[in-house]
Amino acid sequence: MTDQVRVEVDGPLGRLVLDRPEKGHAWLAGMWTTAARLLEELAGRSDVAVILLDSSGDRVFSGGADLVELASIAGTEAGASDILHRIEGVMAAIEAVPQPVVAVVSGTAIGAGLEIAAAADLRVAADTARFGIPAARIGVVTTRTDVARIVRVAGPALAFDLLLTGRILDAHEALASGIVSFVRPAEQLREAARDLALRMAASSPVSLREMKRHLLAVSPAAAWDPDAYRSSVDALASADFRARSAALTFRRGRHDRDEQPAASEEDS
Amino acid sequence: MTDQVRVEVDGPLGRLVLDRPEKGHAWLAGMWTTAARLLEELAGRSDVAVILLDSSGDRVFSGGADLVELASIAGTEAGASDILHRIEGVMAAIEAVPQPVVAVVSGTAIGAGLEIAAAADLRVAADTARFGIPAARIGVVTTRTDVARIVRVAGPALAFDLLLTGRILDAHEALASGIVSFVRPAEQLREAARDLALRMAASSPVSLREMKRHLLAVSPAAAWDPDAYRSSVDALASADFRARSAALTFRRGRHDRDEQPAASEEDS
Amino acid sequence: MTDQVRVEVDGPLGRLVLDRPEKGHAWLAGMWTTAARLLEELAGRSDVAVILLDSSGDRVFSGGADLVELASIAGTEAGASDILHRIEGVMAAIEAVPQPVVAVVSGTAIGAGLEIAAAADLRVAADTARFGIPAARIGVVTTRTDVARIVRVAGPALAFDLLLTGRILDAHEALASGIVSFVRPAEQLREAARDLALRMAASSPVSLREMKRHLLAVSPAAAWDPDAYRSSVDALASADFRARSAALTFRRGRHDRDEQPAASEEDS
Repeated sequence: MTDQVRVEVDGPLGRLVLDRPEKGHAWLAGMWTTAARLLEELAGRSDVAVILLDSSGDRVFSGGADLVELASIAGTEAGASDILHRIEGVMAAIEAVPQPVVAVVSGTAIGAGLEIAAAADLRVAADTARFGIPAARIGVVTTRTDVARIVRVAGPALAFDLLLTGRILDAHEALASGIVSFVRPAEQLREAARDLALRMAASSPVSLREMKRHLLAVSPAAAWDPDAYRSSVDALASADFRARSAALTFRRGRHDRDEQPAASEEDS
Repeated sequence: MTDQVRVEVDGPLGRLVLDRPEKGHAWLAGMWTTAARLLEELAGRSDVAVILLDSSGDRVFSGGADLVELASIAGTEAGASDILHRIEGVMAAIEAVPQPVVAVVSGTAIGAGLEIAAAADLRVAADTARFGIPAARIGVVTTRTDVARIVRVAGPALAFDLLLTGRILDAHEALASGIVSFVRPAEQLREAARDLALRMAASSPVSLREMKRHLLAVSPAAAWDPDAYRSSVDALASADFRARSAALTFRRGRHDRDEQPAASEEDS
Repeated sequence: MTDQVRVEVDGPLGRLVLDRPEKGHAWLAGMWTTAARLLEELAGRSDVAVILLDSSGDRVFSGGADLVELASIAGTEAGASDILHRIEGVMAAIEAVPQPVVAVVSGTAIGAGLEIAAAADLRVAADTARFGIPAARIGVVTTRTDVARIVRVAGPALAFDLLLTGRILDAHEALASGIVSFVRPAEQLREAARDLALRMAASSPVSLREMKRHLLAVSPAAAWDPDAYRSSVDALASADFRARSAALTFRRGRHDRDEQPAASEEDS
């Protein structure tokens, strides 16, 4: 599991790296648990001033939850609730670390892939990146906490559009709407992200920590209470989700075999 | 009354249509009551997956409340309070229906015309559309609930501008600021809106309903309590409103007789 | 003190003018107190319909708090708390006046210079204006109330960027992100601002006052409680702030002597 999500420390920068390129960096259940633990460890390291969320390669940031595994474990209420709590654990950990967190969106960020980028404090993107949450198409209900994160980074009007229509944004739309701070050619993105992170690392860690806390406190957010995830549990445990996700997996198998980023586009 | 606001069902799509083109689709008191009832009926129809808010013709979406009628019935506190409750009933009904609601802004959307579009979940517009709320010019106080809806779709900074200066946005400004999801030439708008709605109609109705509920819960909103409309009642019942609206009606009669969309531009 | 911040009344318009051009219109402790008093006086003048926040000259709107004075008086908790309360007094007064307040950003608006513009209801800018809050670089913690004001005008995503990276926006970025309502060549800005203010002055003062109240009520905001400024007091009273601000002042003395706007760029 550690190989599929790992930490690299480079001077004052910590990188949490997704590394499951053969499946579009789709998240397995165990990866969420590992990621939450790694973030908690980074939170306690005073030598790490800034955290980067990244993935290996440069075609996909993350295709979201692994849809095949999700369909197999979410069939019961207990299974669905367990996976949602694991996912929220990572989102909450990103917000809880005192360091600024920068998502380095090197390619497609779909479903939970976009949601995790939205949990970060800043996002930067390759000009080839795409962003979307086609949850409604497969019968998923994004939790209220993640909906609030999308509202936080996209504003309410665009958040309604992303979630109700499944609209996919390209990098320049994401820039124009303020979701990402800058866009760079894919081959220059990581160096630009590193420069930004190093400049932040020269700032006062107390200022960064306290202003991050203030920013989160005054921005849209939702409490992780049963009402925030009740309908998400029901949706994941439903026959409708199994049918819709199976249909999608089947279509992918027939048509999209050689196109992994697109293949995981509709995971969430 | 039914002729001036009616429902048409087209497969999985319900259209609530304003049809008072000779008066810029300005709302009479009875139209609000009819519209709220029609929306409640649509809410209960499981065959209707998406609702479109539209108006006949292609020059005006809605000029807002009918200013002549408004001045005549809002002269007392009871009259002013009654009309405000009717208007809020429609705004609240748009938010309460489980289906996504798309405003098809085929032309000018002014005052309550913009407010009703803001109550919708999504807005699409003709390239000839214009948006504005010149309430302050005629002594109207937009209710706190509607102010919150403008903040929701335009963001606070632009909402201050729209409400305090009466600024009119063209379609491209509305697109750039995120108020509308896309802009099309007027003659292509309805087909593009229908395509969007049909794509949504293929999604899970449970996902759409629950994510709409989450989106509304985490976005700016205000409770419909007396503080939300007290000053609006006072303003509508004031001599200042009667004088300002009479002056506007008189100017229109002299200068704008042949230009209905402009004529209702300053209603609210 | 009165010379460095003063009021001019021009028909229905009140102008609160900063006039300390030799120091980039940086605020001294006494100026905050004077400004709060002047705003309270303007609040009571029914002949003043709109208030403009302006500064003399056309290179700098305000470089923020005077860093040399700030370092000397904020070394104790009592001193740090006192200056923060004075600053908040002006921000709160801008929001409390019933009239609309328009910030006329004729040049650089940095640190508290941007925060005061954000407290205003509207912002208009010269095409040479720049905007930023490099608080983290000198170990300052922007108070939660001011963070909320930045979120209000820039949206959460850009607010995270401005506060955590110290990013400087040019006038066109500020326009595109909605922070300012319009941009004009510097030599045309004041006339354009005056035209806008006069148009507002012709509107109903009751409408403006009540809609301003609603807009503030439904937009991001934070209460001025100890949690909102506790960490700001600690930061200003810290040795880290003294060291970082002294280093900045020293660098300015060596390199930036002839360039006052840049010199005060990093104040906050």
